Amino acid sequence: MDDHDNKKAPVFQQMDLERQNLLQQLKADYRQIIINYFAGDKTSKEKIDNFIHKVFDYNLPVPLIIEIHMDLIDELSKQLKVEGRSDDILLDYRLTLIDILAHLCEMYRCSLTR
Amino acid sequence: MDDHDNKKAPVFQQMDLERQNLLQQLKADYRQIIINYFAGDKTSKEKIDNFIHKVFDYNLPVPLIIEIHMDLIDELSKQLKVEGRSDDILLDYRLTLIDILAHLCEMYRCSLTR
Repeated sequence: MDDHDNKKAPVFQQMDLERQNLLQQLKADYRQIIINYFAGDKTSKEKIDNFIHKVFDYNLPVPLIIEIHMDLIDELSKQLKVEGRSDDILLDYRLTLIDILAHLCEMYRCSLTR
Repeated sequence: MDDHDNKKAPVFQQMDLERQNLLQQLKADYRQIIINYFAGDKTSKEKIDNFIHKVFDYNLPVPLIIEIHMDLIDELSKQLKVEGRSDDILLDYRLTLIDILAHLCEMYRCSLTR
């Protein structure tokens, strides 16, 4: 690494930190969405809208959402196994992902044709 | 309907017919994709790509894909019930829809940022 790179490093570190914070926030948001989705929570739609807008505004790659979903399902699956409970409910969580992807996709489509 | 509308009618009928044919074709394509998805069919990826490109090129609203999926699942569910078989497999078909939506969404996103 030369001097030029050394000067740049803190900025990149800051960007990485910002991105890491964003990812952590998105993961926390998604966890809340997934858990509340079937509980009839009135704020559920609003939380999904906020999540979708955040992903859209930061122009995040779609595979990242899939990754967030898979990580959470993996974590919940282990938790349910430890508690000796069935993980059938996790199959239903795919509906939440479908809902989010469909709305996000329609948002990108409408932005493109506007 | 006035004369002006009368003159226009055949064109609109033609457009409707074209759209109807497209929808029928998409439904048939989607059926093939869903049925082959878990069969390890080598042409599966290619069929999904063609489907996504068709939806993208015609700029079709995303809820239409959800509708095509729901109609097919409904139809398959009835068929399995008549045959006295379990419809557990239909839950897995959501993975195909997730796959399609994720790729389509990424295609719109990349077109927007290009």
